[in-house]
Amino acid sequence: MGSRYLAGKLRKGNVDSTVKLIGWVQKRRDLGGLIFIDLRDRSGLVQIVFNPTESEEALNLAETVRSEYVIEVVGKVVDRDPSTVNPKMETGDIEVVIQQIKIVNAAKNPPFQIQDETDVAEDVRLKYRYLDLRRDPMQKTFKMRHQATQVIRNFLNEEEFLEMETPMLTKSTPEGARDYLVPSRVHPGHFYALPQSPQLFKQLLMVSGFERYYQFARCFRDEDLRADRQPEFTQIDIETSFMTSDEIMEMTERMMQKVMKEVKGLDINLPFPRMQYDEAMERFGSDKPDTRFGLELVNLSETVQDSGFKVFRDAVDSGGSVSAINVKGNGESFSRKDIDKLTDFVKIYGAKGLAWMKAEGGEVKGPIAKFLSELEVAEIKKLLEVSDGDLLLFVADKKKIVYDSLGALRLKLGKELNLIDESQFNFLWITDWPLFEYDEDAGRYFAAHHPFTMPKTNDLDELKANPGEVKAKAYDLVLNGYELGGGSLRIYNKEMQMKMFEILGFTVAEAEEQFGFLLEALEFGAPPHGGIALGFDRFIMLLAGRTNLRDTILFPKTASASDPLTDAPSTVSNNQLKELNLQLNKIKNV
Amino acid sequence: MGSRYLAGKLRKGNVDSTVKLIGWVQKRRDLGGLIFIDLRDRSGLVQIVFNPTESEEALNLAETVRSEYVIEVVGKVVDRDPSTVNPKMETGDIEVVIQQIKIVNAAKNPPFQIQDETDVAEDVRLKYRYLDLRRDPMQKTFKMRHQATQVIRNFLNEEEFLEMETPMLTKSTPEGARDYLVPSRVHPGHFYALPQSPQLFKQLLMVSGFERYYQFARCFRDEDLRADRQPEFTQIDIETSFMTSDEIMEMTERMMQKVMKEVKGLDINLPFPRMQYDEAMERFGSDKPDTRFGLELVNLSETVQDSGFKVFRDAVDSGGSVSAINVKGNGESFSRKDIDKLTDFVKIYGAKGLAWMKAEGGEVKGPIAKFLSELEVAEIKKLLEVSDGDLLLFVADKKKIVYDSLGALRLKLGKELNLIDESQFNFLWITDWPLFEYDEDAGRYFAAHHPFTMPKTNDLDELKANPGEVKAKAYDLVLNGYELGGGSLRIYNKEMQMKMFEILGFTVAEAEEQFGFLLEALEFGAPPHGGIALGFDRFIMLLAGRTNLRDTILFPKTASASDPLTDAPSTVSNNQLKELNLQLNKIKNV
Repeated sequence: MGSRYLAGKLRKGNVDSTVKLIGWVQKRRDLGGLIFIDLRDRSGLVQIVFNPTESEEALNLAETVRSEYVIEVVGKVVDRDPSTVNPKMETGDIEVVIQQIKIVNAAKNPPFQIQDETDVAEDVRLKYRYLDLRRDPMQKTFKMRHQATQVIRNFLNEEEFLEMETPMLTKSTPEGARDYLVPSRVHPGHFYALPQSPQLFKQLLMVSGFERYYQFARCFRDEDLRADRQPEFTQIDIETSFMTSDEIMEMTERMMQKVMKEVKGLDINLPFPRMQYDEAMERFGSDKPDTRFGLELVNLSETVQDSGFKVFRDAVDSGGSVSAINVKGNGESFSRKDIDKLTDFVKIYGAKGLAWMKAEGGEVKGPIAKFLSELEVAEIKKLLEVSDGDLLLFVADKKKIVYDSLGALRLKLGKELNLIDESQFNFLWITDWPLFEYDEDAGRYFAAHHPFTMPKTNDLDELKANPGEVKAKAYDLVLNGYELGGGSLRIYNKEMQMKMFEILGFTVAEAEEQFGFLLEALEFGAPPHGGIALGFDRFIMLLAGRTNLRDTILFPKTASASDPLTDAPSTVSNNQLKELNLQLNKIKNV
Repeated sequence: MGSRYLAGKLRKGNVDSTVKLIGWVQKRRDLGGLIFIDLRDRSGLVQIVFNPTESEEALNLAETVRSEYVIEVVGKVVDRDPSTVNPKMETGDIEVVIQQIKIVNAAKNPPFQIQDETDVAEDVRLKYRYLDLRRDPMQKTFKMRHQATQVIRNFLNEEEFLEMETPMLTKSTPEGARDYLVPSRVHPGHFYALPQSPQLFKQLLMVSGFERYYQFARCFRDEDLRADRQPEFTQIDIETSFMTSDEIMEMTERMMQKVMKEVKGLDINLPFPRMQYDEAMERFGSDKPDTRFGLELVNLSETVQDSGFKVFRDAVDSGGSVSAINVKGNGESFSRKDIDKLTDFVKIYGAKGLAWMKAEGGEVKGPIAKFLSELEVAEIKKLLEVSDGDLLLFVADKKKIVYDSLGALRLKLGKELNLIDESQFNFLWITDWPLFEYDEDAGRYFAAHHPFTMPKTNDLDELKANPGEVKAKAYDLVLNGYELGGGSLRIYNKEMQMKMFEILGFTVAEAEEQFGFLLEALEFGAPPHGGIALGFDRFIMLLAGRTNLRDTILFPKTASASDPLTDAPSTVSNNQLKELNLQLNKIKNV
């Protein structure tokens, strides 16, 4: 018997052929003395049939077969009876009448059925990940991931980028997230760090003259996990010399366009819209706006700065702002109780309250209406484009709280009111980021992106005098409200880089100790360079229409960073610890 | 001024064009009032010329420029004067007469010159790796590495393999080399291990039904380093279901053939020769024979088993063997002193001595000649194909010592006598490996490949009774005396896998604790599967004609596993240790 056929690829053209198939038993049905099996392999499913006329022996053996057995069969492809044609199956026109069957491997009854939809608890799915991965949606997701990988590679190869591998055993640096550490055996008391990103190495590759680098880079962050975070993740890491930020953005757009076309069959228009960071915060209360729906924030600070409504006036007076959302046509559908719930929601984000009005009969009504002058109401109606039946929601607070709370409320309402067209893919650039963010708790500035980001000014004195005002040559790519990734031009001048470290609170000695190699590299003919890093797992999640990042990673970790399949992390032997010159602290709470 | 041209791509066809170039100053020469600069970018070099007629201003600025400055220039491509045409440069027919120059970034005087050949100490090269990488041979190696990566990917994609990413934060397992550990912050006292290879995950992917997986996988081993070892390295990791070992080898051969053709322009004949492990040891004293030259070992045990020469007779009597190498035509060129040196050399490998004879005037002479009978001499001459002028070198010892010492001696002589054709690429499969190796010190068997390798027998009792005799369904690929990689079919049956662990000295509980997830996975319809893993760094080293693995890795570690560039590994803060629940032992010797 010749070579193997793939189950899912059999078609009418194969009718009358004798074929060998190997795969898994998806489902067995016994019906009127016959046995039907849906046989599954990597290509899909085909129905195979055992009947006593064809082979009594095969039929008998087929009776012992259960779900997830691996079997090898030989049979003849035949047309299905028109009444049993299954248009939902790609192979639904035909079936294979089996002459021989061999049981290749048996299977215990699986803890859950291998089917498209599953409501099995996620920890069970992860413990039996190898079964979970047999499900069709998982198979499709990882085929899509493979495909997207190749499209991106081909694109970058054509743009003359070189794929290059940077080290995983690197140096721990204090800025950024928490490092995963790797104790050195050879150097007692010393540690490697797993890279949070290959940032410094990709910059050094530019200093090395390679000019165009990319990598699907594994990155590590020891942070507390959320649904869209994993301790290890993959980013498409790109760096180039001698390109402007416009050129880098334009190239990234073409890359995304190609992926959308080749993986999803969708045409995406270029260029992607661009929005300055400040505008994004004002209009969407977010640095990663989902632009698939409206419900935009409208800043009313000017209108209400002298308002009789003290809450509004005070907010503006103390440097904050007042913004509102017009929930069009939803005045009736939100009861007082509903609005109370929204109020509770915005409080999560620090808002002291949620003021509201409803438009009815050409007027606005609600608890705060009486405090507003006619002029103010008129202006509010104009700015919010109010018509009868609208619900208006206001937050007056510090700017950050206004943005955070109304931004989150906007997303919540957008989902609950079904305003989002899930078939849309809205790419958006956010530009003109602040270079620094001030951290009240730490009492110092932090880099909004990272300390190697080029400021929009060359004036070191200006930078030092007003760090909070300086913008960065940075750009983030947003897709449907998710940050796909970010990039920037980098500092390629030692003095500027030292100034950055100074503003971030480093002494010269600290900067030299931590980043001396970079500072030195900048003195040997560093080219102007920049790049971008895109979260690949998240991109695949959006492409595959999933909402859980774990569905895009073959063997992900749980929210406590463990793997229920292998039981990692695990205890190790005393000898291993001794070799690493380590001992464990006494553990208080496990 | 329009877009940038690449320096190394300018040709006669560009003559009379005005071009913008950006790059590094390779060399500046001042000559008769003119300045000549070799300008370098990622594409190569071009000569640019400053002269006072074209632009006095540019000439003046060019005078301030030094090696490794980054400059941007605009000029006109012209034919070189026939007397100055440089046939060694790809752009040697033309030069660019500069109208404008801008200094993009200055450069300090580099610690070593950026030129093709360098005799700078390696630690200096590694400390200034970004300068070392500017050298043309390094640029070429990493371009070749990129190219080989893409050729292999394209090949595997066409074979319907999926590129898939397995985790880096995995579980520590006791078999194999020493793990790099990563302490968990969330689970005090617990550790992840960095993968020595994705072996278990790729097997689980087969259980998951993906059937064809590959990955350029980063792997980690905390072992003492040699010139051809690095703590982290990259392997081409391949696994497939439902293929025979012949099919896997045949596919690997076609992949290698394609790389050799597309990267090196060489035609390699298929199939690759195959040799059984036992034969390789007998003929070459090595499980990775370099077959580019002869000097093969000849086993004389039968001939000398009853010899009057006690050393020979005893070796055979006690289960060892006697083998010899005929160093053809080199009887005269090796003095007694030379042979003494060879004797010292084989002693490194545990040999007690090196017996020798020279063939002269139809006879053999030398200290041992008198102990050998006429019949023995005749047989030896026949087996070793001796003619006048030959030098015969004998080792009589335990088999392992005979193989190790004569195998190493063969390589040494092959190199010293220039017997190796460096232009040849000799691929070779080594098959029929032993399944286990017995370790005298540990007093137990170890897996010769890994514990998941399929034995050549299905008989569990036979396996248990005579583990040392059982062969494995394993195959290693050797290139020019280097092990490129190895593969095998895997066990896909729980009982067989348990038996393996038993022979390796695991209790049932230990096997369950360490590998329970694999054992369980084998019960849910595991397909027959197998694969191969190829050392990619080493392959590139051989393709690029290098002898140091560090020349094929962008940012390698030294022999003490440190990075002179970033100073990794480094100390970390007490707070970092505290968060990981660790403390350092008092350090005795640093």
